[in-house]
Amino acid sequence: MLSVTILGNNSAVPAFNRHPTSQVVSHDGANYLVDCGEGTQIQMIKYKIRRGKISHIFISHLHGDHYFGLVGLLNTFGLLSHKQELHVYGPSPLQQIIEMQMKVADTELPYPLYFHTLTKPEVLVDNEKIKISCFPTTHRIECYGFLFEEKEGKRKLLIDRVRKLNIPVSFYSSLQNGLDYITPKGQTIRNDEVTTAPEKGKKYAFCADTRYDESIIPYIKEADMIYHETTYLDNVKDKAFERFHTTTRQAAAIAKKASVKKLLIGHFSSKYSTLEQFEAEAREVFPNTDLAIEGSTYEIH
Amino acid sequence: MLSVTILGNNSAVPAFNRHPTSQVVSHDGANYLVDCGEGTQIQMIKYKIRRGKISHIFISHLHGDHYFGLVGLLNTFGLLSHKQELHVYGPSPLQQIIEMQMKVADTELPYPLYFHTLTKPEVLVDNEKIKISCFPTTHRIECYGFLFEEKEGKRKLLIDRVRKLNIPVSFYSSLQNGLDYITPKGQTIRNDEVTTAPEKGKKYAFCADTRYDESIIPYIKEADMIYHETTYLDNVKDKAFERFHTTTRQAAAIAKKASVKKLLIGHFSSKYSTLEQFEAEAREVFPNTDLAIEGSTYEIH
Repeated sequence: MLSVTILGNNSAVPAFNRHPTSQVVSHDGANYLVDCGEGTQIQMIKYKIRRGKISHIFISHLHGDHYFGLVGLLNTFGLLSHKQELHVYGPSPLQQIIEMQMKVADTELPYPLYFHTLTKPEVLVDNEKIKISCFPTTHRIECYGFLFEEKEGKRKLLIDRVRKLNIPVSFYSSLQNGLDYITPKGQTIRNDEVTTAPEKGKKYAFCADTRYDESIIPYIKEADMIYHETTYLDNVKDKAFERFHTTTRQAAAIAKKASVKKLLIGHFSSKYSTLEQFEAEAREVFPNTDLAIEGSTYEIH
Repeated sequence: MLSVTILGNNSAVPAFNRHPTSQVVSHDGANYLVDCGEGTQIQMIKYKIRRGKISHIFISHLHGDHYFGLVGLLNTFGLLSHKQELHVYGPSPLQQIIEMQMKVADTELPYPLYFHTLTKPEVLVDNEKIKISCFPTTHRIECYGFLFEEKEGKRKLLIDRVRKLNIPVSFYSSLQNGLDYITPKGQTIRNDEVTTAPEKGKKYAFCADTRYDESIIPYIKEADMIYHETTYLDNVKDKAFERFHTTTRQAAAIAKKASVKKLLIGHFSSKYSTLEQFEAEAREVFPNTDLAIEGSTYEIH
């Protein structure tokens, strides 16, 4: 199961008890942290995120509200004596900034920390469970969105039929991988007689900070869920453009044009004390929109 | 009135809803921020600290739990369109770290920001209301405590007597400054007949992170209140020494030897879920000890 937990849904200045951007994408026991605004480690404690399950951190861009919490989190992992590898992805010079602060503090982290500099759209992680890639967005400084694509699972055994046909247990995993079974008498049992097709892998895209820009559509096309920023309401389109951000209706238009199944909106400007209108405006264009609420987990079915 | 509001009382790792070090020293309408751990700006909102009154920030040392919130706060001041001067004091290379992060984000602050590098014990601020100086402490990296000395006020008019003697209003401020009054008939009215002595200026010292070290005593001698770290309870003296920190009884011994009036203790290790024993142990040595509790304001009378 792929799911997303929101740790911060606000833009630059914390306000109205909303925090800067951070979210955890969870899949099959792993937690992937996306952005890490100031206070993320405190939000993790509040919302009971298992920090030990985080092996990859993705930083979209180097505006403070997306990464000022990173150095503190890396430090805390050290103080908690983490041992496992940690991979951090972000634009240059993130590595230099973090390493400088570690050096000044005379801190040696007790775990292997690997930095990966984002420079272009590419696949960042690709294993048997998930593929994670980045794509550029249009912001005031270099910025990337992240796409999480769950791998297709294995075929599912129709266990009653499998047993009835006396297929040996040792062959089950071959069945899950799609092979036909040949009985000792040479009879072929077709795979689709005893298994069903696996569920299609789910697809989630975090679209980072961006102006309205249809060039991201190929990356996020037909995703099961996307998170798109809506820093502003619809009546300040000009301001949104000027500041390289998006309005409610614009984010919803992207969701619609990309034929995604669900839209999650966030990165709300701190000038708004309430969020109802964000939801209402976006839903006018794309009905299956939800507000990204801190502490909430959105499961992708 | 000099007072101290605690924003964070914990050591390195946030835990048990305790936050990293930060406190606000308030005096006569000005707020002086001392240390700025991650999340300080959020704590300021929570505890209704008037951010606009902050003109000076003092960073004791460059361990993250004392300054990782600074860059975010400076950024927020910018986003809130602050215009007034801001002075930041801290060890090198604080300026370089902050400036690098601003540059990478393509951020130009809209207010004048002045960095002052701490290198030795010296007076940092000296005006008609307050004198603020720094003194070195013994920590794993370069570290400074800060001493706040309220200037003595003016003499207080005994207004009934002043009026009865027909001293003109235009001479009141001279009386407050200690001058005698000569009547039109040449008679001298001695200043102490119509005024009382001003209150003595109060003295507060923030003793930063430090090993037990009596060399700070000359700086904090007879202060009305000091804040001294007590990262550990008394039973782990060796660990405290090794890690350049102080225990409860050691902090209390410093307070006693320095003949201060009151001791505030904080910087509690995140391995302790409760704090009662900190208070109890310190009070055995120095009875007028209080725990530094987040959100509490300690007035110095």
